[in-house]
Amino acid sequence: MYNLLKGKKGIIFGALNEQSIAWKVAERAHEEGAEFVLTNAPIALRMGQLNALAEKTGSQVIAADATSLEDITALVEQSMEILGGKIDFVLHSIGMSVNVRKKIHYTDSNYDFTAKGWDISALSFHKVMNVLYNKKAMSEWGSIVALTYMAAQRVFPDYNDMADNKAYLESIARSFGYFFGRDHKVRVNTISQSPTPTTAGSGVKGFDGFIEYAEKMSPLGNASALECADYTISMFSDLTKKVTMQNLFHDGGFSNMGVSDPVMEKFE
Amino acid sequence: MYNLLKGKKGIIFGALNEQSIAWKVAERAHEEGAEFVLTNAPIALRMGQLNALAEKTGSQVIAADATSLEDITALVEQSMEILGGKIDFVLHSIGMSVNVRKKIHYTDSNYDFTAKGWDISALSFHKVMNVLYNKKAMSEWGSIVALTYMAAQRVFPDYNDMADNKAYLESIARSFGYFFGRDHKVRVNTISQSPTPTTAGSGVKGFDGFIEYAEKMSPLGNASALECADYTISMFSDLTKKVTMQNLFHDGGFSNMGVSDPVMEKFE
Amino acid sequence: MYNLLKGKKGIIFGALNEQSIAWKVAERAHEEGAEFVLTNAPIALRMGQLNALAEKTGSQVIAADATSLEDITALVEQSMEILGGKIDFVLHSIGMSVNVRKKIHYTDSNYDFTAKGWDISALSFHKVMNVLYNKKAMSEWGSIVALTYMAAQRVFPDYNDMADNKAYLESIARSFGYFFGRDHKVRVNTISQSPTPTTAGSGVKGFDGFIEYAEKMSPLGNASALECADYTISMFSDLTKKVTMQNLFHDGGFSNMGVSDPVMEKFE
Amino acid sequence: MYNLLKGKKGIIFGALNEQSIAWKVAERAHEEGAEFVLTNAPIALRMGQLNALAEKTGSQVIAADATSLEDITALVEQSMEILGGKIDFVLHSIGMSVNVRKKIHYTDSNYDFTAKGWDISALSFHKVMNVLYNKKAMSEWGSIVALTYMAAQRVFPDYNDMADNKAYLESIARSFGYFFGRDHKVRVNTISQSPTPTTAGSGVKGFDGFIEYAEKMSPLGNASALECADYTISMFSDLTKKVTMQNLFHDGGFSNMGVSDPVMEKFE
Repeated sequence: MYNLLKGKKGIIFGALNEQSIAWKVAERAHEEGAEFVLTNAPIALRMGQLNALAEKTGSQVIAADATSLEDITALVEQSMEILGGKIDFVLHSIGMSVNVRKKIHYTDSNYDFTAKGWDISALSFHKVMNVLYNKKAMSEWGSIVALTYMAAQRVFPDYNDMADNKAYLESIARSFGYFFGRDHKVRVNTISQSPTPTTAGSGVKGFDGFIEYAEKMSPLGNASALECADYTISMFSDLTKKVTMQNLFHDGGFSNMGVSDPVMEKFE
Repeated sequence: MYNLLKGKKGIIFGALNEQSIAWKVAERAHEEGAEFVLTNAPIALRMGQLNALAEKTGSQVIAADATSLEDITALVEQSMEILGGKIDFVLHSIGMSVNVRKKIHYTDSNYDFTAKGWDISALSFHKVMNVLYNKKAMSEWGSIVALTYMAAQRVFPDYNDMADNKAYLESIARSFGYFFGRDHKVRVNTISQSPTPTTAGSGVKGFDGFIEYAEKMSPLGNASALECADYTISMFSDLTKKVTMQNLFHDGGFSNMGVSDPVMEKFE
Repeated sequence: MYNLLKGKKGIIFGALNEQSIAWKVAERAHEEGAEFVLTNAPIALRMGQLNALAEKTGSQVIAADATSLEDITALVEQSMEILGGKIDFVLHSIGMSVNVRKKIHYTDSNYDFTAKGWDISALSFHKVMNVLYNKKAMSEWGSIVALTYMAAQRVFPDYNDMADNKAYLESIARSFGYFFGRDHKVRVNTISQSPTPTTAGSGVKGFDGFIEYAEKMSPLGNASALECADYTISMFSDLTKKVTMQNLFHDGGFSNMGVSDPVMEKFE
Repeated sequence: MYNLLKGKKGIIFGALNEQSIAWKVAERAHEEGAEFVLTNAPIALRMGQLNALAEKTGSQVIAADATSLEDITALVEQSMEILGGKIDFVLHSIGMSVNVRKKIHYTDSNYDFTAKGWDISALSFHKVMNVLYNKKAMSEWGSIVALTYMAAQRVFPDYNDMADNKAYLESIARSFGYFFGRDHKVRVNTISQSPTPTTAGSGVKGFDGFIEYAEKMSPLGNASALECADYTISMFSDLTKKVTMQNLFHDGGFSNMGVSDPVMEKFE
């Protein structure tokens, strides 16, 4: 629509189906003139409809386990070959807690599951940046974004160990963002999005009630996946070159609410 | 360049000369297809070169004292007439501390000066929104931005009472942002900008040393006035509709630094 | 009970009646071995029962308008005379919004009232510290505490302009705290307390519903005035000498909650 | 000195030698009338002088690997037996990064080392609380404290993956703090301490320069290990019952500094 990403090359992790934020980011990036590679874990590729998105956006799909340095290395090398140069933007939209899936309460965590979820949801972001940094694969003034959630700052009881994973993820954005900024002029940020009815989000217990609560707490209402994609595009564009190491709330205002009038009504 | 603000109408407070962030915002908004009214205090209009900017951007200039409800009311009414409709975006770039100007130390504040600076630098933002809100002068999904500085969160000894003014300003953004969002679907945010060599910024004691320190502390270096304008454009555009009540750091990463390598070198 | 403040001398602003947090602080400080002067505005002295507290704690009462440098100067001089030396601790528990009292909505603020409330609720803290600092009235490792509320960070719609006043107050704590620490080794902090059924708190619209909401949101429940007094004693004691320029939440956990189970139940 | 912990029973993790903060906490807790068990990893027991501390404070030492649920379970059971009842306070002062020890740069992390450091430094806190919670081993209004560092919020380039570990640790304090508060009326907090010349701290590259920088940045100077112990005692005492899920900076004011005068001098 605006040619904001004209000529830019990217890698988009984590699109599964039309509900995915990463899917919307891919569609919007395509509209804005970008070329990119789509990637997801082999099992997600089988479950999802990524080929349809690839076709629609003229992209190629590369399977990669984001916890594997080898897979990420191959992905980055092939992406640079396919796209014909360095990478301008990367979206990390990856998260999964085995404890959540298995309905294990936070106070009863299975620590093998905790470690697995931490590796997938948080450490994978470090690994992706490790490869991009050491291969000098990012263009100057490139932009890396990971999606996160406010549970990193405040307690949502059913969010389980994903809260801790997101806190770790956001810390990686700062820690690696320093070196990526200092050495390669690349910015690294996280977007803290409203609860969104994606396949991942819906796995959280009591998600429907929660999404209604968030809607009522947010003066502008919850942000949709498409709106999140729009915001992500702005963070990939040249308009935001000096924003780095930030956690950016995209949530209709929820994060700075103490209580809203509609929520208070339930207590009067 | 991108037509991001095509058809949008705005009011820009606080352009004085080419160094001003508001000046750069006006130039960039013009490039992005917006129409707007420029405004500043009568005395600033005499000192500055706003007419040159108005000519360049096809804008009209309206003198207004931003501490006067009457002036703001006239400004808003005339702006809607000139622009032919409701307002889509507003920039508040206003700040002045009499204590700073008179070189009065923070621990010796003259409280008449403190009150004057608070009225100009902080309360003016409430007054502007008061008029816009009560006149229903903002379009749905309009965007209001005020410029601020990190001294609202952390101590910079020479920033004096402007630190407290900025803390108040950021609180207004949240407080009024709630009602503006709930009732009119308008977003309100502040951008916390790197120290910038504008006429206002340069008035702070030891500004040159400070700007070097900030440059060394920020992995991406200080953000320039033009880069701040770019970021402001993104906040006025339709890409950021669900971002509200936020304080957004635009500072090359400074705000999340504990210490950088170049600063540490001075201590080794 | 513990002799935590044995031999310490203080000034306590803002006790009105038995519900007041400052009242409880005075009682607890007395129990812990402190000597202090009680002060409040002349009108509050007429309305309240401060003499009873003075008698109980062996204290003297000095009337002072905390917005008047002259009154504060006299208060500090007399307190040092009465107590026989420098001051070890000060409690600032002062807040009042005329807009709240007159039930004027935030979006319709009367700015004379706003200025009045700002002067009483926020600037008074600067004035008190100004006198203490310039008169070198504080002992080394002395402790100054002001009470605040989380509305400084997050929106509570009925809290009105007190939110902005508290943001300014907390900023003063940081700004003045730097100079007081650097020059006189005095620490300055704010305690951000649960909503408390005091005379001041009860003036906020919808206070009863709100206090129930806060109770349900806080895993440990709301903090009482007495518990706040206990916490304040710890901040006056020698156990917390290196804590300064902080805003300390004393709220049963509310400030770091996104949502609690009892609140979510209302949405299921 | 004050009998603040008279009759209270505790478990103190992480004392190694006289420089350790945990060592100072044990000494101060003993002075305040507490009884407690000292624990550390078997290897640390061999390297350190914990028996001397045990003798001095009338305590028993129990070896436990804090990453092992079995060890923690035995520790908690034996502690309750030795102390004759439930636990009132727990100090978690455990941290180690293999990447730091092996001088591996953050951008080159060895992920096995990362996982090991995360398990020891962060997840161990979850495991300790898991056992305490499920065994109902904590008294009502008990207090759990973990030590952390500001690198969880801001970048200190040489702090390496400990920054991310501390971010995860602080998130655990919130997440588990909710359930511990709601179900057992136990509070959980982290204390974010100045850089301290302990055996652990000194392992960080460039530590001497850094400690000087922190000293110059902090208006009250760095907080010592003994001062940290004092503060920890206040958090274990009954004066702070309603403080929970907080990260409490104990750092002479550093955390809220943008720049100090002595640091600015280096840039003038």
